[in-house]
Amino acid sequence: MTLTLADIRAAHTRIKDRIHRTPVMTSAALDAKAGARLFFKCENLQKIGAFKARGATNAVSLLSEEEARRGVVTHSSGNHGAALARAAKLRGIPAYIVMPANSPQAKFASVRRYGAEIIQCEPNITARENTANGVVERTGATFIHPYNDARVMAGQGTAALELLEDVPDLTDILCPVGGGGLLSGVSVATKSINPEIRVFGVEPAGADDAARSLAAGHIIPSTSPNTIADGLRSSLGELTFEEIQNHVDGIVTVSETEIIHAMRTIWEVMKIIVEPSGAVGYGALVDGQVDLAGRRVGIIITGGNLDLDTLPWMTAKA
Amino acid sequence: MTLTLADIRAAHTRIKDRIHRTPVMTSAALDAKAGARLFFKCENLQKIGAFKARGATNAVSLLSEEEARRGVVTHSSGNHGAALARAAKLRGIPAYIVMPANSPQAKFASVRRYGAEIIQCEPNITARENTANGVVERTGATFIHPYNDARVMAGQGTAALELLEDVPDLTDILCPVGGGGLLSGVSVATKSINPEIRVFGVEPAGADDAARSLAAGHIIPSTSPNTIADGLRSSLGELTFEEIQNHVDGIVTVSETEIIHAMRTIWEVMKIIVEPSGAVGYGALVDGQVDLAGRRVGIIITGGNLDLDTLPWMTAKA
Repeated sequence: MTLTLADIRAAHTRIKDRIHRTPVMTSAALDAKAGARLFFKCENLQKIGAFKARGATNAVSLLSEEEARRGVVTHSSGNHGAALARAAKLRGIPAYIVMPANSPQAKFASVRRYGAEIIQCEPNITARENTANGVVERTGATFIHPYNDARVMAGQGTAALELLEDVPDLTDILCPVGGGGLLSGVSVATKSINPEIRVFGVEPAGADDAARSLAAGHIIPSTSPNTIADGLRSSLGELTFEEIQNHVDGIVTVSETEIIHAMRTIWEVMKIIVEPSGAVGYGALVDGQVDLAGRRVGIIITGGNLDLDTLPWMTAKA
Repeated sequence: MTLTLADIRAAHTRIKDRIHRTPVMTSAALDAKAGARLFFKCENLQKIGAFKARGATNAVSLLSEEEARRGVVTHSSGNHGAALARAAKLRGIPAYIVMPANSPQAKFASVRRYGAEIIQCEPNITARENTANGVVERTGATFIHPYNDARVMAGQGTAALELLEDVPDLTDILCPVGGGGLLSGVSVATKSINPEIRVFGVEPAGADDAARSLAAGHIIPSTSPNTIADGLRSSLGELTFEEIQNHVDGIVTVSETEIIHAMRTIWEVMKIIVEPSGAVGYGALVDGQVDLAGRRVGIIITGGNLDLDTLPWMTAKA
């Protein structure tokens, strides 16, 4: 199957009353620095503090009554978990969230807030999947993958619909890529609306599976991702890889130093809290990985959930 | 003279293309905690990161050509300084900013960004005033007081115009009070539009000169303010005292612990950066100083400028 603009528009109609219409923020100071016009789509200000509210809400809305009764399950480093927990709570159904034991405390708290059952596991993909499968067997709940799921991808793409509605004359979009759910939806929506707009995926150099996969023409999983951007440690899935291959103009990578610097700049200048994963788009721009001089660039800030006790610029210093 | 709604409306027309229309944010999580509907007017997302952009822009717009040529001067712990520097830069005139040597680094940087001349002084009001007077004598620049100035007060009041345009059916407004420029403008605007809406000033318990002044019926200056909320250490001025006496329903005070707690909660839940002074409104609500159960409460978040290297919850722990 292939994701279409119609899927994404239908998702938007389905979820728009259950999510925030997030603001598109601008900053004269950052424009001057960049020599370009920047439009930040602030999904850190989304429900649960991340764009993941979109996909999860769409997926839960699409369950039949019978499926819904048995609940939903997922594995997630946190934001999709919180999003699914919230979507389940809105529909009044159970949610089971499998989380790596080393997830940030803020992400545990965020899942707990919505009354989901948390099942901790080892921080690797095999443990996550086995644990989630066990829950499916035990409860009959429907598994909602954090990204390799057409319902989720369609939901995430609604961020681009809104961004392009607010700023139709963008020339480029910079979009973080971890598992690729957001980048799939954003690239399909954007290219369907206006194929002239360039769409770039951005990932940490220490978790560059998307860049390597696209170069190789097949999925090369991230075996030992090494990045502070905990939301971008996942590898592409089959569904997301296909869309990204077909619709994305390129993948650029960003160093850890640049991620932390970008994150701090956004905090200082824009006064909004962005998590490391959410800052890579702006990081790529500052890093000059793509020539964007004089252009009108949409930058998706994906989330703002992190432990406020240990900020990366302090850790780096100590 | 007395401030009127017409002054505030005229100020808005004058400045609205030079400031951000800041968003009014809501949070289901914070509503649930408070048992009330909360509407946060996010002046931390204003130009220069604080509502002070409003008053300074209005004051500079009102200068004659001849006055403007000689420039403007002020003393400020920082936000008004940055605001005046920016307003002067927009008009292409010089700005001289007298700042206490112990101001946060972020506030120095913010003033410098707009090319103003910074003159450091001792951190007390006498030193500030003497230094500023010296600049006036030397340059012929017009002194723009940070709050005790009708042009400034009218500008600050425009925040309430926008808030009430977006949420006309508020029942209460919680507004930080330091020197009283914002509270003057907000209370005059609010009571003129709808006298039923209650307006409360909020200040740190360690800088409670407004509460004491209102109780006494005359200005009691803050001699040794002791609070992390550096924007709220000033004492009321004659002009602001008069408006506050006539239009405000009460002044409530908040402890240092509650200020830090409120600040952190806003960061965590709303994903926006608020400085200590900006968090006192929400702090008063959480503290239960006013009974707001079931009500529709506007909370003005005044600014987001602070040093990101030393966050108060870390300092408090260490």
